[in-house]
Amino acid sequence: MNAVSPEALEYAREICRGAREASHTLALLDDGTRSAALRAGAERLRKERSRIEEENAKDLAAGRSCGLSAALLDRLTLTPERIEGMAEGLEIVAGLPDPLADSIADWEAPSGIHINQVRIPIGVIAIIYESRPNVTADVAALCIKAGNAAILKGGKEAFHSNSVIADLLGEEFQRAGIPAAALSLVRRTDREVTTALLAQEDGLDVIIPRGGPSLVRAIAQHSRVPVIKHYEGVCNTYVDAEADLAIAAEIAMNAKVQRPGVCNAMENLVVHADVARTFLPEIGSRLADAGVELRADDRALGLLPQATPATEEDWSTEYLDLVLAVKIVDGVDDAVSFINTHGSGHSDAIVTRNETTADRFLQGVDSAVVYANASTRFTDGFAFGFGAEVGISTNRIHARGPMGLRELTTYKYVVRGNGQIR
Amino acid sequence: MNAVSPEALEYAREICRGAREASHTLALLDDGTRSAALRAGAERLRKERSRIEEENAKDLAAGRSCGLSAALLDRLTLTPERIEGMAEGLEIVAGLPDPLADSIADWEAPSGIHINQVRIPIGVIAIIYESRPNVTADVAALCIKAGNAAILKGGKEAFHSNSVIADLLGEEFQRAGIPAAALSLVRRTDREVTTALLAQEDGLDVIIPRGGPSLVRAIAQHSRVPVIKHYEGVCNTYVDAEADLAIAAEIAMNAKVQRPGVCNAMENLVVHADVARTFLPEIGSRLADAGVELRADDRALGLLPQATPATEEDWSTEYLDLVLAVKIVDGVDDAVSFINTHGSGHSDAIVTRNETTADRFLQGVDSAVVYANASTRFTDGFAFGFGAEVGISTNRIHARGPMGLRELTTYKYVVRGNGQIR
Repeated sequence: MNAVSPEALEYAREICRGAREASHTLALLDDGTRSAALRAGAERLRKERSRIEEENAKDLAAGRSCGLSAALLDRLTLTPERIEGMAEGLEIVAGLPDPLADSIADWEAPSGIHINQVRIPIGVIAIIYESRPNVTADVAALCIKAGNAAILKGGKEAFHSNSVIADLLGEEFQRAGIPAAALSLVRRTDREVTTALLAQEDGLDVIIPRGGPSLVRAIAQHSRVPVIKHYEGVCNTYVDAEADLAIAAEIAMNAKVQRPGVCNAMENLVVHADVARTFLPEIGSRLADAGVELRADDRALGLLPQATPATEEDWSTEYLDLVLAVKIVDGVDDAVSFINTHGSGHSDAIVTRNETTADRFLQGVDSAVVYANASTRFTDGFAFGFGAEVGISTNRIHARGPMGLRELTTYKYVVRGNGQIR
Repeated sequence: MNAVSPEALEYAREICRGAREASHTLALLDDGTRSAALRAGAERLRKERSRIEEENAKDLAAGRSCGLSAALLDRLTLTPERIEGMAEGLEIVAGLPDPLADSIADWEAPSGIHINQVRIPIGVIAIIYESRPNVTADVAALCIKAGNAAILKGGKEAFHSNSVIADLLGEEFQRAGIPAAALSLVRRTDREVTTALLAQEDGLDVIIPRGGPSLVRAIAQHSRVPVIKHYEGVCNTYVDAEADLAIAAEIAMNAKVQRPGVCNAMENLVVHADVARTFLPEIGSRLADAGVELRADDRALGLLPQATPATEEDWSTEYLDLVLAVKIVDGVDDAVSFINTHGSGHSDAIVTRNETTADRFLQGVDSAVVYANASTRFTDGFAFGFGAEVGISTNRIHARGPMGLRELTTYKYVVRGNGQIR
């Protein structure tokens, strides 16, 4: 991510310029218009299923001939069900409440001016993503619903699929009164154009990378545009001395095993010394039966015959797999300090019946979402009731944790007076 | 801002590490403790006025011997009144309502988990600023009141003054129960250490530069840490065809003349063609009498005998001085498009009696603060009723426009369940 040609820069600048202009028009449209456009887009995707499948077949053929793995080919494939899923996604987003509807605050200042803090779209958002072509429809829907112009940069392996989806949606959006440049798919798929986008500090308001940690890290490091990062989740579950151990076991199993490949799955199980002897042997064998590899600290090793010794690195590792690190601590303060040191500030849980201890944990742990007596797996926009999600932000400012439509908005102050001066 | 030695990096990392740890303790303290610390700090500054003056004298002597301008020497000087001003500032911030007091939202998700979105401090904030040593006390107060650890990097010309202020406040804060590392003045004043701070993406949560546009620009371009920019204000006032011209004249005079050196002063006067003939000659001579140099477009030139022709560059220039560019447009849409193209998205006003026209302007102009029938000079935290201000953000996300204490906070989700799993 270094050298970038003047052509690539000019190409990126041109796209941003168009998107900025479109964003000003888009900001004046009402929710009815924006939502009708999404519904029309959904219908169009359904109607042109075979055309989408044809274009998708080109990507799959190219993917096969350059040796993409079976897993990647699967993610790339648009089945009739997945196409219907995209259409339904557009309709669901269309049906959500208008994120721009209510004002945030409203007051009169001493000078007599009336100040109204209103929600508005962020403006121009670039989303940089990999392989799954349905992301094209998902993020287009979320951006447009919140009144933002979207610049989408997908992976080259999905070029034909992304292009046909963006073309069909773009045509319908325009017919519904949305400016063409409100949805731009970047038609160059080289890395240089990504670097060029990262340099558009005046053209772009925010970049959202959706992809593996190396993509996110590279973008965050090189971008001059604010990035809303969707980084890793090194999530912890702390089983307190006063935990209901049956509940603790269910939560630990769920957080580790139900879907280990996602960012809100548990990576470290932290157990109070007082209950370790009772709790660990049983949960250890349940986890091992479920195929989980255990790595334990010195004190836990004796209670977990299946475990191997954990290294210092294990405590900060996002396995995204059936692997779990186990640590024994001497109290909630120890647990909090362990989690603040080694976790990634994503989602962490305590299991306890003691409310004071729970409060101490919930206050002390410096993470986007902190849980008492529930699984960390609830950290997502759907489980939170947002109806949709952009992703799960690991930023500390603007948007933290599950991002819904509201997190794609910002605000401005509208001030009305009758001639006030200072 | 390029090469940076391993020593400077390690030095910056060490400061951030301490601040992070302190921020965790600080987040658990109540508003009473934080505010008492600020009040104790205020008392201490008053008590040690002569020590502060002695240290300040060292900076002034050094400044004189290296030829600092009279204006800079004045900004650097701590008079008894300015020291009392710092103390009062600390007390005012102490007395403001706790920005962490209320939760933002509260609901139950379908799974039965209870979700509470609570305000919390951002964490570790670095402020990079120039010359005026009273900034040290101001920003320390704001950061601590909102529960944040502050890392302050002042200019080398104010080294002794900043050091004594930070020492005195730090001692009192510690005595009041605030961890020592919650307030760190960077004791190296080289540029390398600034570059090293910009690279602390894990150690710092936000950087706020307070200084001239070149400082802000350099920091924004090189920082890996999110920056809340306080950039320039190219503010516009649009006088509509249906304006009350007496009000328009008062607002224009105020916005340009009352304090031309600040970011919310007017730089472009945009006038509807229908009233230009009535409005411009009179306001032109009033402005000229007040010492304002006028630069006008072709159509306005004939109505402003005092004016010289404006160049394309004038429309986007922040003069911060008694200079004004004048433009004639043919309607509100023209005005909106002119402002969105040439303004800096800071503060822009319309003067009109027509509410529909006002709404069109207020909706269409893409700026942090938009006014109908009031002077752009109201864009600041005090005029908005925040009681204090960090500055005026030109960012689009997280904080826009006047930043008070609340804008130094973020949120986390606290989720309570009784054993919910997915």
